[in-house]
Amino acid sequence: MFDLVTPALLLDMTVLDRNLATMSAALPGPRLRPHVKAHKCTQLAHRQRESGHTGFTAATIRECEGLAAAGLAEDILLANEVLDARRLGALVDNGARITLAVDSEVTIAAAAAGGVREVVIDVQVGLPRCGCRPEDAGKLADLARGAGLEVRGVMGYEGHLMGWQDPVERGRLVAEAMRPLLAAHAEVGGDLVSAGGTGTYRENTFATEIQAGSYALMDSQYGTLGLPFGQALYVLGTVISVWPGTPTMPPYAVVNVGLKSLGMDHGNPSIEGAQVWFCSDEHTTFAPDEPVAVGDQVKVIPAHCDPTVALHERVHLIDGDKVIDTWPVDLRGW
Amino acid sequence: MFDLVTPALLLDMTVLDRNLATMSAALPGPRLRPHVKAHKCTQLAHRQRESGHTGFTAATIRECEGLAAAGLAEDILLANEVLDARRLGALVDNGARITLAVDSEVTIAAAAAGGVREVVIDVQVGLPRCGCRPEDAGKLADLARGAGLEVRGVMGYEGHLMGWQDPVERGRLVAEAMRPLLAAHAEVGGDLVSAGGTGTYRENTFATEIQAGSYALMDSQYGTLGLPFGQALYVLGTVISVWPGTPTMPPYAVVNVGLKSLGMDHGNPSIEGAQVWFCSDEHTTFAPDEPVAVGDQVKVIPAHCDPTVALHERVHLIDGDKVIDTWPVDLRGW
Repeated sequence: MFDLVTPALLLDMTVLDRNLATMSAALPGPRLRPHVKAHKCTQLAHRQRESGHTGFTAATIRECEGLAAAGLAEDILLANEVLDARRLGALVDNGARITLAVDSEVTIAAAAAGGVREVVIDVQVGLPRCGCRPEDAGKLADLARGAGLEVRGVMGYEGHLMGWQDPVERGRLVAEAMRPLLAAHAEVGGDLVSAGGTGTYRENTFATEIQAGSYALMDSQYGTLGLPFGQALYVLGTVISVWPGTPTMPPYAVVNVGLKSLGMDHGNPSIEGAQVWFCSDEHTTFAPDEPVAVGDQVKVIPAHCDPTVALHERVHLIDGDKVIDTWPVDLRGW
Repeated sequence: MFDLVTPALLLDMTVLDRNLATMSAALPGPRLRPHVKAHKCTQLAHRQRESGHTGFTAATIRECEGLAAAGLAEDILLANEVLDARRLGALVDNGARITLAVDSEVTIAAAAAGGVREVVIDVQVGLPRCGCRPEDAGKLADLARGAGLEVRGVMGYEGHLMGWQDPVERGRLVAEAMRPLLAAHAEVGGDLVSAGGTGTYRENTFATEIQAGSYALMDSQYGTLGLPFGQALYVLGTVISVWPGTPTMPPYAVVNVGLKSLGMDHGNPSIEGAQVWFCSDEHTTFAPDEPVAVGDQVKVIPAHCDPTVALHERVHLIDGDKVIDTWPVDLRGW
């Protein structure tokens, strides 16, 4: 039993440390640029720094500000477009190294106007999201240089391949996705080819650095891919109700973990030794294989780690069934 | 153009006021016990109080604490089971009136041990979630009274009927669901029969009070039911990228509103005049009917209001395209 108010976000320290070590062995030092959007926690980022990774990837300005405040601004890549870069310019003025993704004339102008000094050209590599057409990358790099910006290279996120099950086919598709990125890089120049994620970190041997984040925490979706990372993240709940079973309704139990404490975009969470029926705001209804009692604690495995973490103010580090530390989730918001 | 950091939660004040007035006309005073889990905002609760509703429904202890701190603890029903009621007992000691749902011997014992003085017996009325078997309600009421608790009546949430499209069939099903609740009430006694929600507030003429919350804000899911409430809640975003269209990929645009700013359990959000393709952590990719430009602002309609609000620190009240106030979303967390 954990002495915690539930629902509570848990992080298994042993599994976390093993995940960090496994990734650092595969992608040492600057080969990995950990994405903080997965954990939104500067204490965890400090551990990634201690594992040898000096650069970070961020998705929001707020994440950049939090990293800078925590002394982790040696080399932050904001892998996202922004229209108002003034808060980033203020960080740069205070000594942070911030590199911003740009993919259009307007975002280049915003970067320059906001006081950002370094950019990468964001190239669309198959995922219909941000990124310019590969053939426009060189022209945008010239435009950026003309606006006084240093162009450090390119980025291109093959997000549509993260969940691809077959590793051989995944490898083939990653190679295909990276071809236009490398072609764009030849036009753009610079040292950086930033791409990849937890799902493709082994197959993406084309990028100079990989932007993985979920590997540290994991979730039930990534858990299906056979990756060498263990499930470190849980939402702890308390069984608050048990239905004994009636002629019209089979037995079930209810744990006080719901939509308000779980990212639901990848579907329902999982509970070991149970079938999850559905989630409500503050509840998950599940059918346990073995009977549970009101008051029991249950560890719920999120289907998607990133949005789950974003719902919690803090994460409790555990060793077995002991809480050994509590870290603020201090990079939330925008 | 709103001068706001995006993504930003917006609440249309005119529509909100109309929604509050419409509901207060239908369910005046104590006939409505507004559920604060939908908006998690004491400023909005104050407006519901000014509309004549003195009691509130809550889903978490934190919501009760926040309501009490805001001077709104005349009559709070925590419509959920808890195993540690000590924080509620502390509120009661400080003058708050808190009534707690109980559905088992264990939760009754927890209520008494925590210093709660008033309870309702929570009865399962068809939704497999909390609530005792209707035939056990009288026995549990006796047990609660034996433990020194005042039993104010019963509650039973017909959540499985909230989204039922056909109002006639919905009415028939609500009547069917309320029959065991009324039978339980006959055994339990007390003044309260608390039930219902935004989807069934018209059909549920059996409960003494309705626990609706979403009516104030609305979302695209409730928007399909033909209810007399308007869409008041949006997440404002900025178009950060526009894809011009290529032989292999049709045109699309990207707004910086994603999984981290939207409740996703009811599926993708909507954008007027556009087809939403998918959401990522900080992005929604959509195909607009008319061209949009990088820098344009877009109002995204959440599929589910409750978990959307829980992702934001504040909500901006708007009148047309002017921000007229900003309220903290101060009931988040547990």
